[in-house]
Amino acid sequence: MTNPDFSSDNIAAAAPEILHAIAAANHGTAHSYGDDPLTHRLTALARDVFETDCAIYPVATGTAANALALATLAPPFGGVFCHADAHIEKDECGAPEFFTAGAKLLTIPGAHGRITPAALAAAHNAATARGVHNVRPAAVSLSQATEWGTVYTPAQIRAIADVADANNLALHIDGARFANAIVHLNCTPAEATWKAGAKILSLGATKNGAVAAEAVILFDQSLAEEFEYRRKRAGQLYSKMRFFSAQLVAYLEHDNWRRFAAAANRAAARLAAGLQTIPGIGLAAPVEANEIFVALPESAAAALEAAGFGFYRWPAPPGIDNTVIRLVAAWNTTDEDVDHLLAALHAA
Amino acid sequence: MTNPDFSSDNIAAAAPEILHAIAAANHGTAHSYGDDPLTHRLTALARDVFETDCAIYPVATGTAANALALATLAPPFGGVFCHADAHIEKDECGAPEFFTAGAKLLTIPGAHGRITPAALAAAHNAATARGVHNVRPAAVSLSQATEWGTVYTPAQIRAIADVADANNLALHIDGARFANAIVHLNCTPAEATWKAGAKILSLGATKNGAVAAEAVILFDQSLAEEFEYRRKRAGQLYSKMRFFSAQLVAYLEHDNWRRFAAAANRAAARLAAGLQTIPGIGLAAPVEANEIFVALPESAAAALEAAGFGFYRWPAPPGIDNTVIRLVAAWNTTDEDVDHLLAALHAA
Amino acid sequence: MTNPDFSSDNIAAAAPEILHAIAAANHGTAHSYGDDPLTHRLTALARDVFETDCAIYPVATGTAANALALATLAPPFGGVFCHADAHIEKDECGAPEFFTAGAKLLTIPGAHGRITPAALAAAHNAATARGVHNVRPAAVSLSQATEWGTVYTPAQIRAIADVADANNLALHIDGARFANAIVHLNCTPAEATWKAGAKILSLGATKNGAVAAEAVILFDQSLAEEFEYRRKRAGQLYSKMRFFSAQLVAYLEHDNWRRFAAAANRAAARLAAGLQTIPGIGLAAPVEANEIFVALPESAAAALEAAGFGFYRWPAPPGIDNTVIRLVAAWNTTDEDVDHLLAALHAA
Amino acid sequence: MTNPDFSSDNIAAAAPEILHAIAAANHGTAHSYGDDPLTHRLTALARDVFETDCAIYPVATGTAANALALATLAPPFGGVFCHADAHIEKDECGAPEFFTAGAKLLTIPGAHGRITPAALAAAHNAATARGVHNVRPAAVSLSQATEWGTVYTPAQIRAIADVADANNLALHIDGARFANAIVHLNCTPAEATWKAGAKILSLGATKNGAVAAEAVILFDQSLAEEFEYRRKRAGQLYSKMRFFSAQLVAYLEHDNWRRFAAAANRAAARLAAGLQTIPGIGLAAPVEANEIFVALPESAAAALEAAGFGFYRWPAPPGIDNTVIRLVAAWNTTDEDVDHLLAALHAA
Repeated sequence: MTNPDFSSDNIAAAAPEILHAIAAANHGTAHSYGDDPLTHRLTALARDVFETDCAIYPVATGTAANALALATLAPPFGGVFCHADAHIEKDECGAPEFFTAGAKLLTIPGAHGRITPAALAAAHNAATARGVHNVRPAAVSLSQATEWGTVYTPAQIRAIADVADANNLALHIDGARFANAIVHLNCTPAEATWKAGAKILSLGATKNGAVAAEAVILFDQSLAEEFEYRRKRAGQLYSKMRFFSAQLVAYLEHDNWRRFAAAANRAAARLAAGLQTIPGIGLAAPVEANEIFVALPESAAAALEAAGFGFYRWPAPPGIDNTVIRLVAAWNTTDEDVDHLLAALHAA
Repeated sequence: MTNPDFSSDNIAAAAPEILHAIAAANHGTAHSYGDDPLTHRLTALARDVFETDCAIYPVATGTAANALALATLAPPFGGVFCHADAHIEKDECGAPEFFTAGAKLLTIPGAHGRITPAALAAAHNAATARGVHNVRPAAVSLSQATEWGTVYTPAQIRAIADVADANNLALHIDGARFANAIVHLNCTPAEATWKAGAKILSLGATKNGAVAAEAVILFDQSLAEEFEYRRKRAGQLYSKMRFFSAQLVAYLEHDNWRRFAAAANRAAARLAAGLQTIPGIGLAAPVEANEIFVALPESAAAALEAAGFGFYRWPAPPGIDNTVIRLVAAWNTTDEDVDHLLAALHAA
Repeated sequence: MTNPDFSSDNIAAAAPEILHAIAAANHGTAHSYGDDPLTHRLTALARDVFETDCAIYPVATGTAANALALATLAPPFGGVFCHADAHIEKDECGAPEFFTAGAKLLTIPGAHGRITPAALAAAHNAATARGVHNVRPAAVSLSQATEWGTVYTPAQIRAIADVADANNLALHIDGARFANAIVHLNCTPAEATWKAGAKILSLGATKNGAVAAEAVILFDQSLAEEFEYRRKRAGQLYSKMRFFSAQLVAYLEHDNWRRFAAAANRAAARLAAGLQTIPGIGLAAPVEANEIFVALPESAAAALEAAGFGFYRWPAPPGIDNTVIRLVAAWNTTDEDVDHLLAALHAA
Repeated sequence: MTNPDFSSDNIAAAAPEILHAIAAANHGTAHSYGDDPLTHRLTALARDVFETDCAIYPVATGTAANALALATLAPPFGGVFCHADAHIEKDECGAPEFFTAGAKLLTIPGAHGRITPAALAAAHNAATARGVHNVRPAAVSLSQATEWGTVYTPAQIRAIADVADANNLALHIDGARFANAIVHLNCTPAEATWKAGAKILSLGATKNGAVAAEAVILFDQSLAEEFEYRRKRAGQLYSKMRFFSAQLVAYLEHDNWRRFAAAANRAAARLAAGLQTIPGIGLAAPVEANEIFVALPESAAAALEAAGFGFYRWPAPPGIDNTVIRLVAAWNTTDEDVDHLLAALHAA
């Protein structure tokens, strides 16, 4: 057997429930652009799952979800606060700047991928000290789970939302790994979003078992009309919407999303526990979802690479001199995969 | 049975070959973002099918394909010539203006959805008469098949490309119904594109049997790097690319795309032939692909609506006073569907 | 003496009152970016002159004034109705598309440069028939005086504003030659703007005696904050604002702007009257401001060119086969200049 | 006498040479949009002064100059390296993002407002590690003099240009205080720009004695056509260009710009020398141009404010606990002004 690939959760196949839903959607005609029964059912299901009258829009990538969400919240002359390592800042090739027509990301440092209410308040004061000579802060974007595999508690989100509300900033959550986060928190989707002050959620599904399906959920439906124009204009309004809605229905119903995420989180926890028994190896951040950041000797990292294990090297955070690598568990990562890697590291 | 729906080819289900390809792609891990065997196979297949070293990029909508293509050809201060009824002008909510950062569509009228070389030359002269006070023309976009269901011959494209080349304009083809066009022309894909002077093709598949798969094909690979940055930035770079590439491979291989389109064209021809036997009913444009534009008494249109046939009313072209409706045949439209509509019109 | 140049009013020198105001502004220090006594005085003066609590912002070009105004009224996914010959459509190199981040100009034909309420209503219905597949109409822009030298009466503006209000469209007036228009109308600035339903005015001064000074006047001050951010971001917030405000104060006070415009209109009227006495020469549009569009034999146009008179050839409007030229009178055009041209035409 | 205002050099009046040039330009007609004798003379003069066949374009603000320059160098998916305190990052309300259609500023820290070649190389490596997931670096922008009043030597610029050239980055210089820099360096304009590797210079004049005149100078004339379209589209092409060109001609001829800057630098040096004789007061950065950053006890800063001296408080750089204020000398700052402030500080 070839050694398993922990480079990302987006290399995994799709879950059978998702594939089956696509096939089941493929009969007869359906009105295009979302006026079909499956898309209507998705809306009803999202309102049940999130316990509020939200609007939900399937899009095909997390970058599109985030950029459309931010464009709906921030004007071209606006600013969006986010963590210095946020995906929107580091991994989307300027999509937020493109979709917003030039709004500025105002980055905030913070341990383990989190920003704090105090840091947000300070950044807001600095950004608004000179009026029109700076962009006007308009939004805050949090990653849940964060880029360092940690999770904001509802209380932490609420505290940030309080600063945001006090300064007329709208709160967006980049939930590319939202299912992994709520499984870790053992809370409801509502508790981790609108009940904690979020206005828009980018809901990931692709990394957690879908073929290609992300969604934008608007908790403030007054944003819906603008969002719908922006979605069309961005080339994200699908004619055969039923096939995207089908994936998301299968994802959200029967708690499938929680089940997939729970499996990934369990594999990550097993991996983290095993790693900590190995001398000279440590965690660069707490493991709360399905990503593990490991600080290890360069020789060990090189040995894993030589053995053909898949993973990415990561910039070491302040205070860590060792090599840092990222390992990601997926919905279908097995105990054998995990133990295989641990055995290789013990040997190294 | 309910009466068939001729409102569009995008309401049809996907072909079994496409569904099967998605399922077959769902095993094991695959590198993300297009570095996977199916995507590599798609590139090789496209080069065979188009008989040249092109680059092919899956995207999820025709609007995204067109807007990304035009942004690659036209600067923000540029102009793009197109027919006054072009999809990019009338049906994409300003996506070309968004992706190009404000380039201007310079529209040209023309019978049956076609522009002529003479009209293009005249429009270019008018647009360049005052230097920087007007946008600088940069590209020409043709729809193949056109918005009126007609088809440009390779010679007609070549004649337009000659005007374009003489004025340093890049030629884009919006091929949302490209398969229907080449089946009508009984020519090779190469003859209808790069051999006739096209630089970029938006290749549609969704309307012709796919789940959700369009592609941008670059015949000038010097545009590839810029295109790849723009695609990512537009949220059109899919992590699980294999599922998009799989659809396009199944579409292009074994002449499936031609077979699907031939069936749609045949149904449209059968419908057109039958319509012309009905007194008081005429065609608003020649039927060359899978769209039929019918001029008929308002009472007949109303009767079809009352009977529950699906179709759209269309703005009447100059010189036609009757009601005009659009009927579209899909890859799976049956003779029975067609005859059913014809019978209803005879009765009306 | 060389023959006079009627090519445009922007080739004229500045009026002595304006030059004197710049020199008078040049003493001591003044706070930058508009927080200076002259700029405060300009605001107070504009409120007197326009009889309402408006906000006024100096900018350096009419293109900047129009594009900033439209960006404040139309979202990136919006549409702006304007005449097919409007300056924003034909002469600003896509500035409105740039400043709005890709909004679309939706052009409406109309005799003598004017659009009608009925044509606007029809265009709005056509543009909104397909929801998000088209841009969402957001504004209407009128040119006052028009590109054909005609003037909208307050009643005509009101009738267009009624259609705009009924469809939630904001009304912008491009007043590059606003002074010439109100002198022709013999009405107050208020009657031709906010009292007739306008939300924003681009007020020209450069063509009418200033060095370089246009202004944007907001009659709806709720737009002020957004406008101020957009102005800064567009590089139109001047550090030494006093020198721009000084020009506009000198322009508006003591009815100087009306006096300058009256002189230009008088010269145009004298020219128009003289032209109509010449056999074979006619007017292509009524002369209501300071522009004269003349239909004349090509031989006569060529003779004027040969004699060194300055003017532009213009595209002939429908129904005119003769050569059409544009002649523009400025604040300092003399009777001698006019009579000189008339004599040359008589001779030709 | 009221106490002098050191808050900025843009609060100063214009130099008599500039006012006189504007008045002298105001006779007869002149072709619009730059096709006038004064603008032609400006181009010839700039070529003499910079010893190369450059193109020069007057614009009305430094923000416009910088944003137009960067838009000419960086695509929408591009990145621009600059110092973390650069004016384009901190003081232009996102103008670079607006004009470039969303390019990203990639900031680099550095002592006293300077970036180093090593820091630039490291930032470039980090920014390009992940291909299309990050923006593609396209340009480097240096401020000369820097935001901390320091100056890059030609050798320092050359060393940065070498890193830029090796990575295909175009070098832009924000020369809002370029005259102050070259006077300090006692070098030629060419030595501090194109001879050191710069492609575009934003040349400031407003802060150094003009009414409102900045310029963009292209040392690579292949960029001229694109720049001219962007300038028009940005509302920065002036119809009565002669009045802007006149200021710049008067600025550059007879070494006036060097004379004005030398006076400001002398005043700054006198102020810096005096400050260092006062116990408890130090400089936060070396004084090399006309800006002085002073670290002083809060009580002293408060005393100056109470006495009505004009200045800005500044964020303290790392390692300084005292209050930091910025004092700026202008072309017409007198020894009396300087000594007056020093006396007040001695008293405080």
